[in-house]
Amino acid sequence: MSIDTDTIAFAHSLADAAADVVRPYFRQRIQVIDKGATGPKPIFDPVTEADRAAETAMRKRIKSERPLDGILGEEHGHEESKSGLTWILDPIDGTRAFITGRHTWGTLIALHDGTRPTLGIIDQPILRERFIGHSGKSEMITAEGRAPLRVRPCSALSQAVVSTTHPWGYFDRKQRAAFESVCENARMSYFGGDCYGYALLAMGFIDIVIEGRLAPWDVAALIPVIEGAGGIVTDWDGKPFAMGGSVIAAGDKRAHAEAVKILKGKG
Amino acid sequence: MSIDTDTIAFAHSLADAAADVVRPYFRQRIQVIDKGATGPKPIFDPVTEADRAAETAMRKRIKSERPLDGILGEEHGHEESKSGLTWILDPIDGTRAFITGRHTWGTLIALHDGTRPTLGIIDQPILRERFIGHSGKSEMITAEGRAPLRVRPCSALSQAVVSTTHPWGYFDRKQRAAFESVCENARMSYFGGDCYGYALLAMGFIDIVIEGRLAPWDVAALIPVIEGAGGIVTDWDGKPFAMGGSVIAAGDKRAHAEAVKILKGKG
Repeated sequence: MSIDTDTIAFAHSLADAAADVVRPYFRQRIQVIDKGATGPKPIFDPVTEADRAAETAMRKRIKSERPLDGILGEEHGHEESKSGLTWILDPIDGTRAFITGRHTWGTLIALHDGTRPTLGIIDQPILRERFIGHSGKSEMITAEGRAPLRVRPCSALSQAVVSTTHPWGYFDRKQRAAFESVCENARMSYFGGDCYGYALLAMGFIDIVIEGRLAPWDVAALIPVIEGAGGIVTDWDGKPFAMGGSVIAAGDKRAHAEAVKILKGKG
Repeated sequence: MSIDTDTIAFAHSLADAAADVVRPYFRQRIQVIDKGATGPKPIFDPVTEADRAAETAMRKRIKSERPLDGILGEEHGHEESKSGLTWILDPIDGTRAFITGRHTWGTLIALHDGTRPTLGIIDQPILRERFIGHSGKSEMITAEGRAPLRVRPCSALSQAVVSTTHPWGYFDRKQRAAFESVCENARMSYFGGDCYGYALLAMGFIDIVIEGRLAPWDVAALIPVIEGAGGIVTDWDGKPFAMGGSVIAAGDKRAHAEAVKILKGKG
């Protein structure tokens, strides 16, 4: 399915609006609130005024220009769709990276048609890098222009560079052991990443990203970007990813299949 | 001791020379050679033409403009000093980050007076961020200008953000357990970093960096930057750092002391 140019332009305008709000907060001394999410054990789950204000800015634009569309956002909840389309928003994916001055966070914007995400944006406002996928294609947009995104071949797990945001923060004990086993069988692992890991995958600089405990807004935008770059996104059993839980994204089916053999049944 | 302005300008010219060489290689398809360093087990230890060419560019400048100074570089070995001063060079600290398209690598340049490093530069040529420490002060230099670097207070380990480049790649089993115990007692951990972790510490966005198995060129430049920003760099026993091995850098003595209690005897 091809997305119409008005919708694409509107998606870009959402990313622009969020970037304008977020950019001035970066590396400032801002208040960090602990949402105190619980998992295997309670974890520090930070949110800032930047997260909330950026989501508000995007919601305002959607309500005013596309009032029939639904909204599902990390910070301000769900509004039902009357058009069949829903915008899925994560204003700052990687708040931990954001509050520690790193560049691996981003704004995630997806358009969901009721069945699957059909458009996705990963925007890094400080690096001024934007990754967009829709209609079976993905591209990277910078000040220098637009370039198509393409995953790289990786014939075996032993050749793969593997990444995750945190190698134990989002996994239970069984998942952690399985993830480490994938790393031990890979060429190299490097952690820290949040959504930027998927951008590196789509650019063809890494081969596999594995994450656990994801919410819909953590992942909806990534799927069109990865798939449009020729990659694959599944759950840990190798099945189509169901918008939450444990995910493995890969650039090459061969390395993906080997990693899934290790992860299977543990997601 | 204060460093004279000619020496400071010369150090900047080395960073400029390395940046000019390295920048065009970033995110290009370049050959990666495995130096095959051995540790607890053999690890993938990549080097590229970018590393070698950047060090060559810096060595050429030193030989032509400061022929009496010694050179110790990661890629091209040691040349004895006739002046008592030695330049310690790591053209790309974080080659793994470099070859995977990340921004956490940097060029490290230190001037050693035979006793200790008296000037240090961490340069990130893509972000165009430079961190320099000497004469008891540190500053960050960007296109927007110069800003003094200052660590932040952190009264207890339970409040600390802890970082390392890779949570098991550079540690033996005992070290890994000790490092994880520090993380469990901290507020938050985030990995991936190479030299950029120390820059974030000097900027006051993280509180503790812990690394193992460092070479002199991995760390000489960091010491003047951290100390000039008000921080502390020691070995895992809390003793003055001896230019190699296991290191802990912190912004606040109180969090440092708590972490050292856990790491002691294991470095």
